[in-house]
Amino acid sequence: MTISELFNVIVTQPSQDIYKQSKDKWDSIAKPIDGLGDFEEMVSRIAAIRGQVRPDLSRKAHVIMCADNGVYEEGVSQTSQSVTRDVALLMGERKSSVGIMAKGYPIDFFVYDVGINSDDKLPGVIDKKVRKGTANFVKEPAMSKVECLAAIEVGIDAVKSCSDKGYGIISTGEMGIGNTTTSTALLCALKGLEPSAVTGRGAGLSDEGLQKKIQVIEKGLELHIGSKKDVEPHEETKEDIEYHGNDNGSLEIATREDTFNALRCFGGFDIAGLVGVFIGGAMYHVPVVIDGVISAVAALVAERLIPGCKDYMLASHMGREKGMGSILEDLGLKAVIHANLALGEGTGAILLFPMLDMVMNLYSSGTNFEDTVIEQYERFQ
Amino acid sequence: MTISELFNVIVTQPSQDIYKQSKDKWDSIAKPIDGLGDFEEMVSRIAAIRGQVRPDLSRKAHVIMCADNGVYEEGVSQTSQSVTRDVALLMGERKSSVGIMAKGYPIDFFVYDVGINSDDKLPGVIDKKVRKGTANFVKEPAMSKVECLAAIEVGIDAVKSCSDKGYGIISTGEMGIGNTTTSTALLCALKGLEPSAVTGRGAGLSDEGLQKKIQVIEKGLELHIGSKKDVEPHEETKEDIEYHGNDNGSLEIATREDTFNALRCFGGFDIAGLVGVFIGGAMYHVPVVIDGVISAVAALVAERLIPGCKDYMLASHMGREKGMGSILEDLGLKAVIHANLALGEGTGAILLFPMLDMVMNLYSSGTNFEDTVIEQYERFQ
Repeated sequence: MTISELFNVIVTQPSQDIYKQSKDKWDSIAKPIDGLGDFEEMVSRIAAIRGQVRPDLSRKAHVIMCADNGVYEEGVSQTSQSVTRDVALLMGERKSSVGIMAKGYPIDFFVYDVGINSDDKLPGVIDKKVRKGTANFVKEPAMSKVECLAAIEVGIDAVKSCSDKGYGIISTGEMGIGNTTTSTALLCALKGLEPSAVTGRGAGLSDEGLQKKIQVIEKGLELHIGSKKDVEPHEETKEDIEYHGNDNGSLEIATREDTFNALRCFGGFDIAGLVGVFIGGAMYHVPVVIDGVISAVAALVAERLIPGCKDYMLASHMGREKGMGSILEDLGLKAVIHANLALGEGTGAILLFPMLDMVMNLYSSGTNFEDTVIEQYERFQ
Repeated sequence: MTISELFNVIVTQPSQDIYKQSKDKWDSIAKPIDGLGDFEEMVSRIAAIRGQVRPDLSRKAHVIMCADNGVYEEGVSQTSQSVTRDVALLMGERKSSVGIMAKGYPIDFFVYDVGINSDDKLPGVIDKKVRKGTANFVKEPAMSKVECLAAIEVGIDAVKSCSDKGYGIISTGEMGIGNTTTSTALLCALKGLEPSAVTGRGAGLSDEGLQKKIQVIEKGLELHIGSKKDVEPHEETKEDIEYHGNDNGSLEIATREDTFNALRCFGGFDIAGLVGVFIGGAMYHVPVVIDGVISAVAALVAERLIPGCKDYMLASHMGREKGMGSILEDLGLKAVIHANLALGEGTGAILLFPMLDMVMNLYSSGTNFEDTVIEQYERFQ
């Protein structure tokens, strides 16, 4: 895939007609109007995405992108890098946290190696390794343009494959030591934010570790974008990321080329892979569930690269990392789970599914007012 | 049960030792520290309540209290009163909204008639009718003291019965046309709130309907408590509900006798039944899940009547009705679902369960750090 092929991807709107029919279906069910609140809206959006008033969500896929990050060498994690490989191996066997949580639940896992720093072939893991980890973003861009496009393509192809196999909904997960650092740096680059305002403790950094992480992100931003105030690209990396002010008075990256450059400068392959999954969702009309902040940053990149992708996304949980709220706001999405989750692997995203199943039970088989002696509620608002 | 028997109920604290052991168990599982956030806390609280580091939550009971409200005759609902009976009948057959949502999910329903305005025997519904609906609270107290105690006792006995049968957790639901009016009036009485500040649209009132509902609640408050400013009980009903200022400058009902009187003045039997369920949870060491605002008001009454009950409660969702946030704050609880739900029947409470199942999977069978090559995270906070 070339960059112009990427930018030529055309995303059509979900069906507004089906959306309206789905809303009417909700109102015909014997319950208070909008009784299931945001879940009703979610189901109607899914119906519109699938182009079916009664979408079939029985087949669910959990797509996990795994990769290592060069910035690990700056000491931004309390964990050793080999944990990415170790956990990916467990994931392939459904023995990592998300696999154990989903035990007995009907969901299929597709674990991708987009860039794990290991030569091992991992059973149960789909080998789409672009490179054995990104470069260290405080020294050079994390990926070349070709590598970045390749990782995005892995994600798009993952959705095509799921779509061909009949999956009706996809959740996203990731594994990559150091990826709260890469995602936070990318978020700062995308929205012109101060690292100190949005950097969190990841898997559990000390105060000192947190300060280190903030400094590393600041150093990366300085290298690749220069001072946000004078908006000059840094000469050494020859990147040309520009900002413009938005309505809120904060800075926003100007063009989709800038967005692409920010993604490739900060990484990682896991995030780029997820960007592809969100783009693929829009291309193949499969709703894709955002997990925590890493997945959310990928979703934001996808929407900035190909406007309209957001209409194919669903939010699941609010997460604990800072910055999540503003990303979901940018995407016009609302998380229904608020539980300070910070596990990764897509554990928050899959928690949405059994609730959605219960909601779909009512949507699919709910008693209509006309089949009862109960009179239908009138919609006043 | 007499009022002094009620006030003599002794609630012991959940086991702090088991709580600590449960927290340690979470930290030994191969995942980031506090990775499952509020769900980890919830599981450790459940363990402490059950007195078992590995509580058995495989058997779940959904207890639904159904009753009619005399204040219905003031025109506070767009629905006819017979809907309470009709929906209770459907509930008994698991064909109402909550039953359809829970289709295929392993949970047992216990639907109680505490005061439905009907002589029909409803199959699948446990007949514990105290009276055929409460009195209209704008004219007289909704219940006599004896009736109020009887309804509370129904709830306590419901939990004892569940506990005897081996249920490890109970969710709460209610059905009663007009019960957002009774619960809001009760909430205003308990916390000295202005009805205009906390009254919501219930199952979908028009602007005019909402104004009517507010006026009805104001009229009830005037009758039973008199002006909140001069804190004089109304002579006619001879009730003696007194307020004192709390730290926030708002009014709080002074004593537990006042709380009991507020409950019996405003009703309804469904709320009093749920008060009993929350008290029963504390007596029999079974965690009880709060649903929406009606259930939450009952939980607040239970805590005010028998301090310590709140340690046996779990929050599920934030609901759409106003006032929910402040009740959960008073109880020191946090809702993990934020989805603007307003269906009733305990639909929001049961949505918690399949998520909790996934969380319990990890808690029960999660891979320990010591069984992996992954080094354990250090707790810095």
